[in-house]
Amino acid sequence: MIVDRLAVVGLGLIGGSVALGARKRGLAREISGWDRDPSSLEAALAAGAIDRAAGALEEACAGADLVILAVPVRAAADIARAARAAAGGGAVVTDTGSTKESIVAAMDGMAGGARFVGGHPIAGHENSGFGAARAALFDGAPFIITPTASTSPGAEDLVRLFWTGLGCRVQRLSPADHDRLFALISHLPHLVAFALVEAVFGGVGSLERVRTFTGGGFRDFTRIAASDPVMWRDVCLDNRDRIIEALDYLDGELAILREAVSTGNGGALEKYFQRARERRRAL
Amino acid sequence: MIVDRLAVVGLGLIGGSVALGARKRGLAREISGWDRDPSSLEAALAAGAIDRAAGALEEACAGADLVILAVPVRAAADIARAARAAAGGGAVVTDTGSTKESIVAAMDGMAGGARFVGGHPIAGHENSGFGAARAALFDGAPFIITPTASTSPGAEDLVRLFWTGLGCRVQRLSPADHDRLFALISHLPHLVAFALVEAVFGGVGSLERVRTFTGGGFRDFTRIAASDPVMWRDVCLDNRDRIIEALDYLDGELAILREAVSTGNGGALEKYFQRARERRRAL
Repeated sequence: MIVDRLAVVGLGLIGGSVALGARKRGLAREISGWDRDPSSLEAALAAGAIDRAAGALEEACAGADLVILAVPVRAAADIARAARAAAGGGAVVTDTGSTKESIVAAMDGMAGGARFVGGHPIAGHENSGFGAARAALFDGAPFIITPTASTSPGAEDLVRLFWTGLGCRVQRLSPADHDRLFALISHLPHLVAFALVEAVFGGVGSLERVRTFTGGGFRDFTRIAASDPVMWRDVCLDNRDRIIEALDYLDGELAILREAVSTGNGGALEKYFQRARERRRAL
Repeated sequence: MIVDRLAVVGLGLIGGSVALGARKRGLAREISGWDRDPSSLEAALAAGAIDRAAGALEEACAGADLVILAVPVRAAADIARAARAAAGGGAVVTDTGSTKESIVAAMDGMAGGARFVGGHPIAGHENSGFGAARAALFDGAPFIITPTASTSPGAEDLVRLFWTGLGCRVQRLSPADHDRLFALISHLPHLVAFALVEAVFGGVGSLERVRTFTGGGFRDFTRIAASDPVMWRDVCLDNRDRIIEALDYLDGELAILREAVSTGNGGALEKYFQRARERRRAL
């Protein structure tokens, strides 16, 4: 057992999986939960992911030793401030958002901010909501922790212990480094998947034709285009400048390919594909 | 049994899987094979995929009832002409290339061209070569057949029967329609996967960092960037104009997203992601 009382705020895919995983691995004695959507809260209670469905955010956090926030990133700062204020001074508050700089900056200055720790588990799924949550979601996944100079070492340790307990490999990054890196590694591929689905459906002009003629490659490739629209809207709004930089990188690569295709430069194409293949295989 | 003597030319992923599948399902009494790479030919013989390793293309085709070509698309027309000349007048020659207009046009005029049928199984894998071949590769996959006004109905029927026997759902398209459709559904996603790997590695700057921080989403999404560089070089050279059109569609979509991200238009982003998600889910 890592904490006595755990509170999980937001019981969708991520929060639901945190609660289910903590329960299954015995990381907390009691788990309370809150979600602004009563049906998610009821589903989590019915599934035994939480022991107690709180009537309000503050009620879930009061008395908790560790509060985990799993809400869209544009809502996270307000919720984190309210959770920080409602939880006792000894409690640790941490989040799971896909962007880190804005939330860490918002918490760094406030009272008790030293016991807020930014976090981001690199695990997800194109299905969202508590129905998609599962206890093993974080097994073997990277978890990024983003403490700052003012973070309490004890708070950081607790968050590390908890996520290690859920099966993650914990890695440290600064918030800015995290947001730059994930604009490329995660945000860009999601935007591309959404754009590719729109380009293909727009160009083909009929769902039926796309359905009839697509093989497994297209389906696998565009799987992440079914991801949660609200989550990705918030990520785009929150990490705007880095995402634009990542789009610039992609545009540059697409321009190289376009030039090689339109001039029929087979040597350049083969070399390009060969290098990308070697890099992809090295993963 | 659908044919007495089958010849498979090119024993990589596709040709190897045709031979293994035909053997397993008993579609031919005897299977001969040829590959310009002696090691592929030996591997196919050793695995029992073929009964006879021919010393030359002409030897593989002589006496065959059905010749299946599985070679890069820019080599296909020359090989198809040689196979057509070497096989008896009653033999049917068909191909498996990812583009159809150029090969069908090359064969349409020649002697015996009526017994050439263009074909394209929509199954592949990021691994290439005979080592990646498997008997079940075509199970449940679409197979596109592209006969023209001058194609012999008997030849078309035999090709349909054979691929249905391998487990495919056979669909008919004109060669031009095929190439337009697959520029969007298949060629564009492959180019994007290659470009995305290059953009991410270029932006991140270190293989080690990409490896440490990527989750399953990025790996799945870029899996097809490990596909055969020579095959994709040839597809790009052969279907140039349609691929440029497909890149135009994608550029248009990326420009819409870039505008919404850079102006912070959350409503437009959410709507865009919602529509792409619904379309992807409808597959």
